[in-house]
Amino acid sequence: MPETPKKLSTESYKGVRDFYPEEQSVQNFMFKTIREMVEKVGYVEYNASILEPAELYRSKGAENEELVHEQTYTFVDRGGREVTLRPEMTPTIARMVAGRRRDFGYPLRLYSIPNVFRYERPQKGRLREHWQLNVDIFGSNSPYADAEILGVAYGVLTSFGAKESDFIIKVNNRMHLNAFAKRKELSAESFASLRRLLDAKNKMEVSAFNESLLALGITPEEISGNHVPEDIAKMIDEFKAAGINNIQYDPSVIRGFDYYTGMVFEVYDTDPNNNRSLFGGGRYDNLTSLFDNEPIPGVGFGMGDVTLREFLASRNLIEPYVSTTQVYLATTSSDLALQVQTFAGELRRGGVRVAVDFGEKKLADQIRMASKNAIPYLIVVGEDELSSGTFKVKNLTSGEEKEVLRNGLPAYFGGV
Amino acid sequence: MPETPKKLSTESYKGVRDFYPEEQSVQNFMFKTIREMVEKVGYVEYNASILEPAELYRSKGAENEELVHEQTYTFVDRGGREVTLRPEMTPTIARMVAGRRRDFGYPLRLYSIPNVFRYERPQKGRLREHWQLNVDIFGSNSPYADAEILGVAYGVLTSFGAKESDFIIKVNNRMHLNAFAKRKELSAESFASLRRLLDAKNKMEVSAFNESLLALGITPEEISGNHVPEDIAKMIDEFKAAGINNIQYDPSVIRGFDYYTGMVFEVYDTDPNNNRSLFGGGRYDNLTSLFDNEPIPGVGFGMGDVTLREFLASRNLIEPYVSTTQVYLATTSSDLALQVQTFAGELRRGGVRVAVDFGEKKLADQIRMASKNAIPYLIVVGEDELSSGTFKVKNLTSGEEKEVLRNGLPAYFGGV
Repeated sequence: MPETPKKLSTESYKGVRDFYPEEQSVQNFMFKTIREMVEKVGYVEYNASILEPAELYRSKGAENEELVHEQTYTFVDRGGREVTLRPEMTPTIARMVAGRRRDFGYPLRLYSIPNVFRYERPQKGRLREHWQLNVDIFGSNSPYADAEILGVAYGVLTSFGAKESDFIIKVNNRMHLNAFAKRKELSAESFASLRRLLDAKNKMEVSAFNESLLALGITPEEISGNHVPEDIAKMIDEFKAAGINNIQYDPSVIRGFDYYTGMVFEVYDTDPNNNRSLFGGGRYDNLTSLFDNEPIPGVGFGMGDVTLREFLASRNLIEPYVSTTQVYLATTSSDLALQVQTFAGELRRGGVRVAVDFGEKKLADQIRMASKNAIPYLIVVGEDELSSGTFKVKNLTSGEEKEVLRNGLPAYFGGV
Repeated sequence: MPETPKKLSTESYKGVRDFYPEEQSVQNFMFKTIREMVEKVGYVEYNASILEPAELYRSKGAENEELVHEQTYTFVDRGGREVTLRPEMTPTIARMVAGRRRDFGYPLRLYSIPNVFRYERPQKGRLREHWQLNVDIFGSNSPYADAEILGVAYGVLTSFGAKESDFIIKVNNRMHLNAFAKRKELSAESFASLRRLLDAKNKMEVSAFNESLLALGITPEEISGNHVPEDIAKMIDEFKAAGINNIQYDPSVIRGFDYYTGMVFEVYDTDPNNNRSLFGGGRYDNLTSLFDNEPIPGVGFGMGDVTLREFLASRNLIEPYVSTTQVYLATTSSDLALQVQTFAGELRRGGVRVAVDFGEKKLADQIRMASKNAIPYLIVVGEDELSSGTFKVKNLTSGEEKEVLRNGLPAYFGGV
C-alpha cells in the first residue's frame, strides 16, 4: 500500500480568527457604519504597516519594557533589527504626525481601523489579534475638542441603533485628580497607589476599596462624584441641551496608560449582567514629543471590534447574514453556459450583482448551492426562458416567485 | 543643563509604507472599485489573520523550504510554535475551504484583499508588505470558470477606465504543455528545463532563448503560438463575440508556481517602455488535498496594489487627492464654538461631512488649515451669518463663493 502523506490541519494559528464570508460580512457592516459616522464629523482615514521598530514601544518607561518583552510579538529580523507587530495604534499615529507635522492643518482629525496584536495566552475573549477603531484630534487644546471626541464615541454606538439607555459615558479629568492630590498633600508614592486603586475599582468589593482609600487618608465621599468640577458640569449641561443625557462625571475614571494628561473617559455597557467597560480614551498632550521637542496636543479613543460585536449582538443590532450576491442564475443545461454568461453580463451592466452556475450539476443541486451560500434570489435559465424573454425570480427565503421581463430585471433588483 | 532625552525616528520600519490620508485615499479608491467589480460577478469577501502556522508553506516540496526560510518572516512564538506572516493568500484560502467544505455551495466564488509579507532586501518597487487582490472559484471544472476568471481580470482593469489597448491577457494551458512534452518525448529533466526557460523568456534576449530551446530539441516555431489549441481558440472567439479583443494565446506563459494544473495566464502592460507582467493566475486543482483526500478544483488570480497603482498612475486613472470631509466651518470667535457645533450637527443629520474649527486661531489661519488638509469647501460662521441664516460657501480650489440659506445647505452639498 502506498504511504498516505501526512495531512495539514485546517485550523488557524492559535488565538486568531478566520473570517469566512459570514464573519467578514459582520466586520464589513461594523466598519462601514463606523466609517460613515466618523467621516461625517470630518475624520480622514490613515493606515500603516503592522510592522514597527520595537523601540517605538520602549520609550514610555520601565512598565513598557515589560509590555514589549512579554506581551507583544517582537522578533529580530535577518538584518538584526528588532520588529514588533503593533500592539496599539497611538504610538504609530504619533510617529506619523510628528513625521509630517508641517504638511498638516490643525485641528487635524484622523481615524483608522487597524489590526493590533498582543501575545496573550489564548482564552475566551482574549484574542491575539483584533481590530480597533482609532479616532484622534491633533493640535487643539479646546475643551470642545474633548467634547467632540465624547460625541464621536456616543455617535458611533448610536449610529448602530444603540439607545442611550444601553450605555453610559463616564468622564473625568486627570488635572482634577492632580489638583486633588496636591490639595491632600499626597506623597508621590501615595498618589501612585491612589491611581492604581482607582484603576482597579471595578474589580474590587466596595468595602475593600473604601478601606484601601481610607488607608491613604481619603474618604469615599471625597471621590464620590457628588461635587462636579465646573468645567465638566458645563460640558455635561451642553450635551444635555443637545439631547445627549448619558454622560456622567465619575472621579474614579482614570485609564491605565500613563500618557493621558487631561480629560479621560470610559464607556460602560448598562446591561446589569455585563456591566463592563466597552472602550475609552482621553487627552494625551505629550506623545509626539518622543520624536521632537515640539509637542502636539492630542485627544482620542480606541474601540475594539470584539467588544463592539458582542455589545451589538447582545442588543440584536446585527442583521442575519445575506450574501452580497443578489441573484444566482441556475441553468437547465451546460450547453447554455455561454448564453447564461451573456445574460449575466447584461444584468451586471444594469447594476445587478449576479453569480452564474456553469450547469455541471442537476438543477435541484444548483438551487441548494445558492441557498447554502445565502444568495437571496434565484433565476432558472433554460431554453424557454431565453426564447420567451420572461424569467421567474424566486425569493429563496420566502419561496415566493415573480415573473419579470428580461429588460425589467435591473430595475427589479435595484428595488429589492 | 538638563540632559535632552534621545528622540525617536519618525521613519517606518524598512520596506513598508505609511498610509497618510493622501495615500490611504488611493488605496480606498482602488479597493472600492475592485470590490464593486468583483461583487458584481458574485464573489464574496473573506479574510484571515496575517499569522499562519509555518508548516502551511512547507508542504509544497523542497523549493518551498527555501521560500519559508529565506523569503518569509518566520519566527518562533513563546509557546514554541513556528509562525509565518503570510507571503501569499492561496494556501490560506485552500485551508479555509478545506476546513468547511461541507458548509459551502459550489461553484464557490471568493475574494479578499489581504496584506502579504516577503522578506526582501528593501529596494525600489520591492516592498516587504503589499496588498493583493485574490479572486478564486472553487468546485468547478468548467472551461467557463477559467473564462470567468479571465473576464474578472479584464473587468478589474477596465472598471478603472483602462482601455483594451492598455493591456493584453496572454493565456496558455499547462495540459497542452504536458501533452507537448509527451509528444516530444522529453525527459523529466528536459521538461523541467523547458519550464524554467519559458518562465525566464521575458528576461532573455531572443537569440539566447532560441539557442537554449534548440539545445532541448525544440524549434522556436513549435512554441510560437501560431497553432492555437482548439479549446483556447474557442474561448478567444467567444470573448471576441462579447467584444473583448485583447486575449491572446501564448504557449510560453507558464507561471512560476508548481501548483498550477490547467489554464494559466499573465496580464501584460502594453506600454512599450514598461512592457512587463502586471499580474496573473490559473487553475490549481489539488491544493486542498494538502488537508484531506478530497481535492476541490480551484482557479483564480492575485493582483498586487503596488503594480496596479503604477499602472493606473501611468494612464492618469487616479484622481488628485480631495479630503472625504466636504466642508470646513471656520469661526470668527471661540465664543461661538458651541453654536458652530450645533450648526455642524444639523448639517451632519442632513448627510453632509463637516469638520469644525474650535476658533483657537485667526480666521486666515483657519482657512489655510482647511486648504492644507484638501477640504474642498469652507463656510465662515460668525454672528452675522448665524443671525441672518445666510452662509457664504467658498470653493477652496476655484475661490468661487455662493450664498446659500441655512436649510438649503444639505441639498447644496448633496449635489456637489
